[in-house]
Amino acid sequence: MALVVKKFGGSSVASTDKILNVANRVLNDKHPDDQVVVVVSAMGDTTDDLISLAQGIDDQPYKSSYSREMDMLLTTGEQVSIALLAMAFQKLGQPAISLTGSQIGMHTSSNHTKGRILSIDPARVIHELDKGKIVVAAGFQGIDKHGDPVTLGRGGSDTSAVALAGALKADSCEIFTDVDGIYSADPRIVKGARKMREITYYEMLEMARLGAGVMQPRSVEVGQHFNIPIHVRSTFTDTPGTIIREDYTMEEQGFIIRGVAHDEKVAKFAILGVPNQPGVAHKVFAALSDANIDVDMIVQSIRNVEQDITDIIFTVEQNYVAEAKAVIEGVAQKLRALGVEIDEDVAKVSIVGAGMLGAPGVAAKMFGALAREKVNIEIISTSEISISCLIKADRLRAAVNAIHNEFFPID
Amino acid sequence: MALVVKKFGGSSVASTDKILNVANRVLNDKHPDDQVVVVVSAMGDTTDDLISLAQGIDDQPYKSSYSREMDMLLTTGEQVSIALLAMAFQKLGQPAISLTGSQIGMHTSSNHTKGRILSIDPARVIHELDKGKIVVAAGFQGIDKHGDPVTLGRGGSDTSAVALAGALKADSCEIFTDVDGIYSADPRIVKGARKMREITYYEMLEMARLGAGVMQPRSVEVGQHFNIPIHVRSTFTDTPGTIIREDYTMEEQGFIIRGVAHDEKVAKFAILGVPNQPGVAHKVFAALSDANIDVDMIVQSIRNVEQDITDIIFTVEQNYVAEAKAVIEGVAQKLRALGVEIDEDVAKVSIVGAGMLGAPGVAAKMFGALAREKVNIEIISTSEISISCLIKADRLRAAVNAIHNEFFPID
Repeated sequence: MALVVKKFGGSSVASTDKILNVANRVLNDKHPDDQVVVVVSAMGDTTDDLISLAQGIDDQPYKSSYSREMDMLLTTGEQVSIALLAMAFQKLGQPAISLTGSQIGMHTSSNHTKGRILSIDPARVIHELDKGKIVVAAGFQGIDKHGDPVTLGRGGSDTSAVALAGALKADSCEIFTDVDGIYSADPRIVKGARKMREITYYEMLEMARLGAGVMQPRSVEVGQHFNIPIHVRSTFTDTPGTIIREDYTMEEQGFIIRGVAHDEKVAKFAILGVPNQPGVAHKVFAALSDANIDVDMIVQSIRNVEQDITDIIFTVEQNYVAEAKAVIEGVAQKLRALGVEIDEDVAKVSIVGAGMLGAPGVAAKMFGALAREKVNIEIISTSEISISCLIKADRLRAAVNAIHNEFFPID
Repeated sequence: MALVVKKFGGSSVASTDKILNVANRVLNDKHPDDQVVVVVSAMGDTTDDLISLAQGIDDQPYKSSYSREMDMLLTTGEQVSIALLAMAFQKLGQPAISLTGSQIGMHTSSNHTKGRILSIDPARVIHELDKGKIVVAAGFQGIDKHGDPVTLGRGGSDTSAVALAGALKADSCEIFTDVDGIYSADPRIVKGARKMREITYYEMLEMARLGAGVMQPRSVEVGQHFNIPIHVRSTFTDTPGTIIREDYTMEEQGFIIRGVAHDEKVAKFAILGVPNQPGVAHKVFAALSDANIDVDMIVQSIRNVEQDITDIIFTVEQNYVAEAKAVIEGVAQKLRALGVEIDEDVAKVSIVGAGMLGAPGVAAKMFGALAREKVNIEIISTSEISISCLIKADRLRAAVNAIHNEFFPID
């Protein structure tokens, strides 16, 4: 007997036919004694449709004053898909019950649209499993101390699944998705991208943070916390995918880098000509932090030595451009900056690999590949196991391919 | 300072523009010190859309085995509309918060899709009102002792509003709808239908039970229980509507009957040739009751005296035809009946009025009007203050007009 958690994303449950397929697949894979929890996202484009609806009320539904109501709105998406999937299991003769984020005991912080998981009390889940039911749980959502629904933000459904697997001490956590594993680059962009059999939490985290779309960092962190191996695999085939775990169980080929990640959903902000004084950067980033806006790459550069003014440049997620713009224009005025520039036609390309720690010349190799492709680099940032470059969005495809070919030469 | 509960139905919140209109209207009517609770239904056709979706899983989503999951599905409808309406108030500068059935403390029985209100604990509502917020509450839904969402069935949103008004000891409860009051007949069918200024709970209950679509009986019962006057009025105009209350505050014109009600959503079942023995009717109606199917008109008539067999004929709501068919075919087989006939092309027309208690000849007048119109009567049933006839659906319009003209002659 095994206790397994399986998560299916929005594209796997985009229609009632697909929902019936998911139910069939889960039942085919299930040993008679297995206890199964299936975590699902909202159907297909539901979340986007709900956001469009909210835009009928206010064209900026992501303003923080609306965030509680946006969560009230968005959590309906999974509630629809869990109900339908539970019905699908019953239709196939398998007892099943749907449970919302609140009902699986997913307790979160109160920062709406970006809730953090505080604790999980899966008593109801265990109770229903012990009755022989498949539990169909809503991903992406929990409940705060006031009893209000809270969404977990980007990657929330994967995080729900992995956290629930951890809280249940599950034997495995499978993330079913429309790709069949983690690749060395996005296979839609790089023809020769290679599927990995395994990747460490650490490397996956960095890949995810830098835009590798398959897994979001939070779910990987949670997997690492509970030491739950996460099997990322295809909804549509039976082939093994990629297992994210603490360490490799087999000898992996000795590539210096594990993959090339990219992110198109970034926007560049430049606050031009602010006084070069202590505390200026603090004012800018504290204001963004107060508004709950994550900042990624940051550069501060002297604009004019004589006037002693600098430019502060940083990137945020494109979703938050309107909100960040309001915050930054306020700050810029207070700081008497010369102006604010926003550029959404940018993208970030990154290389990731624990191997680069001991390998000199990795950065040079990356920049060389970009230079030969005549891709201009606007900002560079680095971490222990990654190097990222901000470039023009229309050069992204060329850049990713050039870098991948550099590190994973085609045989 | 007054505490007012206002309820807007699905057609009043069918689009985001209409939701903004509702918010505007509520704010225009609000005195600065008023505490306001707005109860809303799901947007427009949302509930039907969700049912269609469920039919993609199983073409009989109303089977009782699915009822918990149907409630999980359907309760998302109001959750969408409350979130959007709360955002609309905020957009207009009015603090507001949306609360689900669970959050307004609407505790219900566990009979899904037809939950009964057991108790209301409006602590959260009062807390939010005291903070100066308009509370936007989900109608039609509550939560059972397991913490599962439960819908209240037909007319549930009105019932939610009236019950919440009762629990809050509200000063008034206004039901906004797409008609501007209660008429002596459906004005879409009868040109000369007259709007009433007042009607008693008792008469309204009977009108509603018999299909007058504006108010469902349950909400009127709840209003009667709490003695909360219910003001039924138009979403789109400021004219006074009809107030449903314990007794008339003014002299009403002395019509013998108050109105003509009709119901097209009925289906006739006939179990043909069952043994004429004690307990047979019990077996039929106990089976329907066990399946939670309400039965309306019932007739038992001898089919064949020598064989001592009878026909049992009754009506149910059309929604439950498939479910009732399954139940009845099972029972018919056990009873060795000759067969089961189902007719969905029927409708019920009724007259209602406390005045008929002391007025002989009312039934004769009704049947006379139908006879002159050559409308055949299939079943007749009566109560203290009403008389109903089951007729062919395609004669309904003619029948309603003939009866209305008989009792409310055009001047």
